[in-house]
Amino acid sequence: MAIRVAVDALGGDHPPEEIVAGALAAASPDLIPVIYGPQELDTHGLEHVVTTGEPVAMDDKPAEAVRGKPESSLVRAVRAVGDGDADAVVSAGNTGAMLAASLLYIRRLPGVFRPGIAIVIPTRRGPSVLIDAGANADARPEHLLQFGHMGSIFAQEVLDIAAPRVRLLSIGEEPEKGNQLTLDAHALLEESSLRFEGNLEGRELLEGGCDVVVCDGFTGNVALKTLEGTIRTVLHALRTEIAVGVRGKIGGLLIRPAGRKLRTRLDPEETGGGYLLGLRGLVVIAHGSSSRVAIANATRLAARGIEHDVVARLGEVLPERVVESSRSTNPSERTRG
Amino acid sequence: MAIRVAVDALGGDHPPEEIVAGALAAASPDLIPVIYGPQELDTHGLEHVVTTGEPVAMDDKPAEAVRGKPESSLVRAVRAVGDGDADAVVSAGNTGAMLAASLLYIRRLPGVFRPGIAIVIPTRRGPSVLIDAGANADARPEHLLQFGHMGSIFAQEVLDIAAPRVRLLSIGEEPEKGNQLTLDAHALLEESSLRFEGNLEGRELLEGGCDVVVCDGFTGNVALKTLEGTIRTVLHALRTEIAVGVRGKIGGLLIRPAGRKLRTRLDPEETGGGYLLGLRGLVVIAHGSSSRVAIANATRLAARGIEHDVVARLGEVLPERVVESSRSTNPSERTRG
Repeated sequence: MAIRVAVDALGGDHPPEEIVAGALAAASPDLIPVIYGPQELDTHGLEHVVTTGEPVAMDDKPAEAVRGKPESSLVRAVRAVGDGDADAVVSAGNTGAMLAASLLYIRRLPGVFRPGIAIVIPTRRGPSVLIDAGANADARPEHLLQFGHMGSIFAQEVLDIAAPRVRLLSIGEEPEKGNQLTLDAHALLEESSLRFEGNLEGRELLEGGCDVVVCDGFTGNVALKTLEGTIRTVLHALRTEIAVGVRGKIGGLLIRPAGRKLRTRLDPEETGGGYLLGLRGLVVIAHGSSSRVAIANATRLAARGIEHDVVARLGEVLPERVVESSRSTNPSERTRG
Repeated sequence: MAIRVAVDALGGDHPPEEIVAGALAAASPDLIPVIYGPQELDTHGLEHVVTTGEPVAMDDKPAEAVRGKPESSLVRAVRAVGDGDADAVVSAGNTGAMLAASLLYIRRLPGVFRPGIAIVIPTRRGPSVLIDAGANADARPEHLLQFGHMGSIFAQEVLDIAAPRVRLLSIGEEPEKGNQLTLDAHALLEESSLRFEGNLEGRELLEGGCDVVVCDGFTGNVALKTLEGTIRTVLHALRTEIAVGVRGKIGGLLIRPAGRKLRTRLDPEETGGGYLLGLRGLVVIAHGSSSRVAIANATRLAARGIEHDVVARLGEVLPERVVESSRSTNPSERTRG
């Protein structure tokens, strides 16, 4: 049976036409995008659920947006998964609102404290997964432990890594380096059943120092955006340097295919987005700046998650592991409430 | 009069000979490096203060190391500045121990809550300064406000930027994006006399979206290391891609000068290290992995700080501004103690 992916046409920085174009590009006999957006939108024959509510803005407060705009395309697309009208949902809109709507209409898997965004990083040694890429700007040690479990299951199921090596993003390899959050999380991860291999520094992110990178959503988001921006700036700077002399110009033409290949491999638009893990349904969060290419890839990413049965696998494996995380709930829980 | 820079020969990942070679390269009639290290070290005629204590290890607990190893090269080199035997100190050793030793033997400028590490980033639009790059893994909103003031004075005095634009490193440009720390700091920065221009995302770090980037030491350290690692991995990956075919190989030879120029501009070893600002003396923290090139540049950086009279300027300007920061001390101070 074909996979149905609800696509929020009004999320992100681009006009809805760009989102529709992306969904259209991803459509196939096995993948049916369902557009959630206003009546007047030309969906080029794609299935279309007309939404009438005011759209959720990028700077809307998440909880207020979900409560106050129940008929928005974002909330309606998320609800479609909760109601069983779609298998998965994709939006490039307000991440906080996506999280709030998902918590309300799709709900968490049993025992999950907080869903986390899992992003695949195309490292030099193959794909690794970073979790949390931005769902929880403030997190607690036990949340990070759960992210480790969710990321590990994801790496096994989707990336086909038999025994994923898990590391904690911090400011030094030594266990005593870090802030209070990572120090406490380090202790929990070390006691856990995960294949935990200690702290990872930012410089190893793109090198592929492990299979699962655990961090709070603030740190993960800053690190990922720094990574993306740096790739773009370096490739741009190289083009500028090359363009200076004749020698460089000719050399630049000759290496163009190599540069293009590299750019494609490292381009975040190629990944399309991240999974919001820990829910009873599949949610893909795309970049706010997603072009049609990124939306197409995000839609395919959603379908791949359904094919791999990510939610069911998390639902089977997490509960056993969740016992472990709640048993080791840290004393800091009480003092830092 | 020549500037005297105390150099800790036993800090960092390299053997002391590498540190001495770096100090030697920086020596000039105007810059006298003074080596702090063991008797047997060949200092090639450089001034040498023999230290007999066990060295501070990278994984020593900072406070214990400073208390327990008062005769180590690190502590002795820092004390030299406190005692007036040297104008500045450079170490690639344990950052936490450098901070603890500096607090004890050099002491803070009046009104300063916490010293912060200021690092110059070679952005596409010229240098900008990031503070804090790692002195305070856990910080409070009022610390970030002070980092803004210190970075701003630094940008004026050392980088010659008349009215530095200050931004806060966060996960979205909108003021309501961030974790509790940046939300509170954003409010303080907005009320302040600084030229505050809102949040900055990691993707703009190397683009040069502002003159002063404010963040806590954990976030700053992760972002900087991500930036460095990404530059290295991208340039390496490009070399690998190019090396595949004949066309690419010839092209690679032709663009080599451009690539080298770029690599030099972006190489963290070229900066050498960061200033620990907010103290009554000049302290330069070099990368743990510093080679002789980095140590030479760190030693020159220390001398430049003396020439620009950074400490005196901070001492003059900060007190006026510090009134502002303590007036606006945030209520979170009490609850998150």
